[in-house]
Amino acid sequence: MGIITYLCTQIATKVKQKERRNMKYGIIGTGAIGGYYGARLAWSGQEVHFLLRSDYEYVREHGLQVDSCNGSFHLEHPHVYQSTTDMPACDVLLVCLKTTTNQRLGQLLPPLLAKGSPLVVLIQNGIGVEDDVQRMFPDLQLAAGLAFICSAKTEPGRVNHQCYGQINLGNYSCRDEALIRQVVDEFNAAEVKAHLVEYQEARWKKAVWNMPFNGMTVALNTQTDLLLKNPATRRLIRQQMMEVIGAARHLGITTIDESFAELMLKMTDETTPYSPSMKLDFDFHRPMEIQYLYTRPIEIARQAGFPMPKLEMLEAELRFLENR
Amino acid sequence: MGIITYLCTQIATKVKQKERRNMKYGIIGTGAIGGYYGARLAWSGQEVHFLLRSDYEYVREHGLQVDSCNGSFHLEHPHVYQSTTDMPACDVLLVCLKTTTNQRLGQLLPPLLAKGSPLVVLIQNGIGVEDDVQRMFPDLQLAAGLAFICSAKTEPGRVNHQCYGQINLGNYSCRDEALIRQVVDEFNAAEVKAHLVEYQEARWKKAVWNMPFNGMTVALNTQTDLLLKNPATRRLIRQQMMEVIGAARHLGITTIDESFAELMLKMTDETTPYSPSMKLDFDFHRPMEIQYLYTRPIEIARQAGFPMPKLEMLEAELRFLENR
Repeated sequence: MGIITYLCTQIATKVKQKERRNMKYGIIGTGAIGGYYGARLAWSGQEVHFLLRSDYEYVREHGLQVDSCNGSFHLEHPHVYQSTTDMPACDVLLVCLKTTTNQRLGQLLPPLLAKGSPLVVLIQNGIGVEDDVQRMFPDLQLAAGLAFICSAKTEPGRVNHQCYGQINLGNYSCRDEALIRQVVDEFNAAEVKAHLVEYQEARWKKAVWNMPFNGMTVALNTQTDLLLKNPATRRLIRQQMMEVIGAARHLGITTIDESFAELMLKMTDETTPYSPSMKLDFDFHRPMEIQYLYTRPIEIARQAGFPMPKLEMLEAELRFLENR
Repeated sequence: MGIITYLCTQIATKVKQKERRNMKYGIIGTGAIGGYYGARLAWSGQEVHFLLRSDYEYVREHGLQVDSCNGSFHLEHPHVYQSTTDMPACDVLLVCLKTTTNQRLGQLLPPLLAKGSPLVVLIQNGIGVEDDVQRMFPDLQLAAGLAFICSAKTEPGRVNHQCYGQINLGNYSCRDEALIRQVVDEFNAAEVKAHLVEYQEARWKKAVWNMPFNGMTVALNTQTDLLLKNPATRRLIRQQMMEVIGAARHLGITTIDESFAELMLKMTDETTPYSPSMKLDFDFHRPMEIQYLYTRPIEIARQAGFPMPKLEMLEAELRFLENR
């Protein structure tokens, strides 16, 4: 090996080491989503630190069980914490709280931000959530995590992963996109299909499905299949999808068009009858994520000069139902 | 008395006699509405013929009882019929069926039309009902009857009139408007407050209240007061009222403006919690009057170039709920 080749190899390795440091992951909220993705990463060999509340004692004693359609597994002794003050500095924080509790981030994040400058990935529903968290922490490096997953926490320390599981990451304000790419790679290595996607497009694309189906299943106390079987509500769902697509186009996202609505309808036709997360929240008397699934995107679209009358009406119905 | 004066008086009397013939009324559908208005007319001395179905035997034996906030009364031996073929020729037919059964008019009216050329007053909900009945009977003389009344048939042969009771008549295709004026006068003489009003304006004015409240109480399984107490649904109801007002203006009805929406909201605030007729129909598993309360007016407005997106959405929700 010549001296030049040797030096090049050394430099490349250093660069690689710098880029590909061994990362510490922190899971903020170990529920159906955080429990699944965190456990996948840990099972693949990553160092993962889990923040828990009610399940802390149980998981510390019995570990974390994942029943998955892609093969079940058990973490014997995960690193678990009751408070972020006890957690070590992390390179990546996966925030997996419901957005209805996002005000908790004002207390949860500062201890971790004092120890380092982690990338914070909001694996949360809706639109506007990064804007609001960024306002709380102006220097924070943020990314969006868009999870396509059916998963539920069935009992303490036990996650039931029914199907799907893909996660897409979009850069919101991370100054080092290579870091996000590394997270994507490490998800893929952990048997979680992941992609780096364009932030705005990804959030609005997901809203095309989320905005009609989450609210309508609550408003009419039903499931996805029945909404699509009735011609009147099928047409309505399609119109609501077109409101989202129209808003996205008005915001400069030109890559989502009518064919995407057709695709979403077809995909939903082919899926088993489904209760979206908001329907489950409503049925189990948990707060609904109206703010980020409806209020904020409707506000953002209206400010851009695009009204969404049917989704506005749905929001009003949900505001009525949440107060019953 | 000079000969001229005498002749004039004679002519005036003849004219008056021609105008003010003694009229025979036919009540097509003796329920909460037809039972009340028909009985009031009969009680005041008019000749009234009642068409009944399930209550026929009972009323023939026991008569018709009206329990009214304005004084109760009993018709001992009303003229009752099971079929329009047995009814005499009538000058005025008050059609008091639910619009959901209007296809029955195709059988019910011909025997009566064979005997004469009555004025047919549709005391029915919604918009477009005269258009459709006129299409069935092109020569029919039609008027709209707009009832503002809380009334219910509580048991066979018994109508409970709780409050209000005003009826407004609008000429749709009657060639002799004096006839409608006579009906108005005879209602007033029967202690039913009545007015002659402009047809189109009256139908759309009533829709300003009817379209938001009938459907929304069904969609959200609630009553008028709770819809107005929640700021989100209060705003929504107001927006829906403005859709109706906008459609009316688009159709050339310039006499209904924003202040009428305010008036309707204020009036509803001041009324006791109320379940509109569609809510009662839904609760008692009867067909809902979606066609004339929503589908037709929405269609008419759309054809005139004015979309009503929030009422369209409400229609879709009702179409879903009626099929459950």
